[in-house]
Amino acid sequence: MKTSTLFLLLCFSFFASTAQTKAPVKNYGIAIHGGAGTILKSDLSPELEKQYKAKLQEALDAGYAILEKNGTSLDAVEAAIKVMEDSRLFNAGSGSVFTSEGKNEMDAAIMDGKTLKAGAVAGVRTIKNPITAARCVMDKSPHVILSGSGADLFAKQCGCATADSSYFFTEKRWQQLLKAKEQEKLTPEKSDTLGSLSPQQNEFNDKKFGTVGAVALDRNGNLAAATSTGGMTNKKPGRIGDSPVIGAGTYANNKTCAVSCTGHGEFFIRHVVAFDISALMEYKNLTLAQATEEVVMHKLVKVKGEGGVIAIDSKGNISMPFNTPGMYRGFRKSDGKTAVLIYR
Amino acid sequence: MKTSTLFLLLCFSFFASTAQTKAPVKNYGIAIHGGAGTILKSDLSPELEKQYKAKLQEALDAGYAILEKNGTSLDAVEAAIKVMEDSRLFNAGSGSVFTSEGKNEMDAAIMDGKTLKAGAVAGVRTIKNPITAARCVMDKSPHVILSGSGADLFAKQCGCATADSSYFFTEKRWQQLLKAKEQEKLTPEKSDTLGSLSPQQNEFNDKKFGTVGAVALDRNGNLAAATSTGGMTNKKPGRIGDSPVIGAGTYANNKTCAVSCTGHGEFFIRHVVAFDISALMEYKNLTLAQATEEVVMHKLVKVKGEGGVIAIDSKGNISMPFNTPGMYRGFRKSDGKTAVLIYR
Repeated sequence: MKTSTLFLLLCFSFFASTAQTKAPVKNYGIAIHGGAGTILKSDLSPELEKQYKAKLQEALDAGYAILEKNGTSLDAVEAAIKVMEDSRLFNAGSGSVFTSEGKNEMDAAIMDGKTLKAGAVAGVRTIKNPITAARCVMDKSPHVILSGSGADLFAKQCGCATADSSYFFTEKRWQQLLKAKEQEKLTPEKSDTLGSLSPQQNEFNDKKFGTVGAVALDRNGNLAAATSTGGMTNKKPGRIGDSPVIGAGTYANNKTCAVSCTGHGEFFIRHVVAFDISALMEYKNLTLAQATEEVVMHKLVKVKGEGGVIAIDSKGNISMPFNTPGMYRGFRKSDGKTAVLIYR
Repeated sequence: MKTSTLFLLLCFSFFASTAQTKAPVKNYGIAIHGGAGTILKSDLSPELEKQYKAKLQEALDAGYAILEKNGTSLDAVEAAIKVMEDSRLFNAGSGSVFTSEGKNEMDAAIMDGKTLKAGAVAGVRTIKNPITAARCVMDKSPHVILSGSGADLFAKQCGCATADSSYFFTEKRWQQLLKAKEQEKLTPEKSDTLGSLSPQQNEFNDKKFGTVGAVALDRNGNLAAATSTGGMTNKKPGRIGDSPVIGAGTYANNKTCAVSCTGHGEFFIRHVVAFDISALMEYKNLTLAQATEEVVMHKLVKVKGEGGVIAIDSKGNISMPFNTPGMYRGFRKSDGKTAVLIYR
């Protein structure tokens, strides 16, 4: 073989291998929320505020650590959610609210923006980390959504950690149920309409929010979204909110963005909020900021649908609009930018 | 008062009252489906084909009669669905398929295109007409989706007719379950993946389809959509398909269209099929025919998501594409056009 031919062959194999090994993207990052609602500085003691911020930071860091080590966005959002499910501060997993029957019924969903595969559980009662159960439905079943005792059973068979009702009992959530039941007696019409409430009605507002969520973009350019919740205090048994509804509370698509919602779930279902943000980007060429603003600050505000979203696009842009006084939230990006916030 | 002034006043009040009484639209109509799948002429006896066509006609006429008398599209779709739920021919209500545990778990949803209000039930076991239960959730609860025994209880409290498991037993569906279980033993991997199957695998294909649906436009220009199903034969207990998921299997919006889906539900959830059709019309100005074609014949075909949709837009155009060999379907319009069809 001539030297020139050898040189050409070497050149070819070098370029071929470079082309095959897709360069990891520089921008990666994660955003999380711990629920939107009437969260006012005057209502939160400095100590409690510190606790919330520390736990949000811990969740962010758990997800970010995975992204940093070239892990997947799916693993990152699951890890972040688990930290919040294991904390009694949030209305998900161990800190879930009570139904009108005094039970805990939890919903969760996860979606892979690369494959559009998704998994969700609705109304599970015995699973410590509903987000892991949702991941099992996605990875190990032919289905997308499993509900009720069938979901509990399937998650258990998949090896998800279980707990009895005492694990999910918190005095704070129990008191919220009692308050909601009192409120219901005083103004029964309020509990029977789809109308929203004034921000002043804190007790009642309490009952709607506290969902946790995470969205991430990994170094390979793959998006993922995940959401977990105990639902609404005093909800009817079997009520399913927007969190486990793919397209409503949770959606991810590498073409556009990953979205996780929090708020008055019924409005988010009827307005297919998460997918609408993606559709506005794909079909109307809106930016992530424009699309989230349009849906959360215009469409939802118009119908008095209270809540917020966190979203990240395929370039690593993050947007976190909310139309309530506050939203527990945070983000951490590979460019070094990071923040943990609560109020406007 | 001068005669001329009186004349002017009379003219004014005549035109004012005309302006207030919105003229009913001329075009109104209804479309229905009884499921898409491997429905071949060679598999259907002339007698059975006749039965299907007669029942589809009866459902169409029940819905159309309401529209004709200036009734609402919501009442029309509910009436049409009830006829099919009460027939053992379709996989909904009385003819529902069995779960892997040999139980019936039914899903249904209804949506009002005028208000975007929606109601759905998932996994009900004792309600004769799940579509009426979904309507109750919409009209009489603050929620959109209720599931499991909570949904059964709520529907019963609303006055929905109930029945025990013997009412939902049909020999044909039971045999389908036994066949599916045999098939599962022979090719367990088939039951554990999201991949689709070749049209030749009739037994297995049987298990996926048979959902019923209706969409309508009434004389006041209001759209509505409704879907009802027993789900998939041999599904895991608690599995929720696309039918009760607003945006996936059912969606209506006066701005665009009303859609009801049938097919392999998991694909319809992951691709948010019903809302995507609406979004393509609203954001990309596609016609109803273009939007349904794009989603059913391109997007779904690309991922091997088998099924079809029925859709009607705010002008009364009807579109009914499906990517399977057959779909039980029919339509009836105020311009006199009507048809009941099964095959391609």
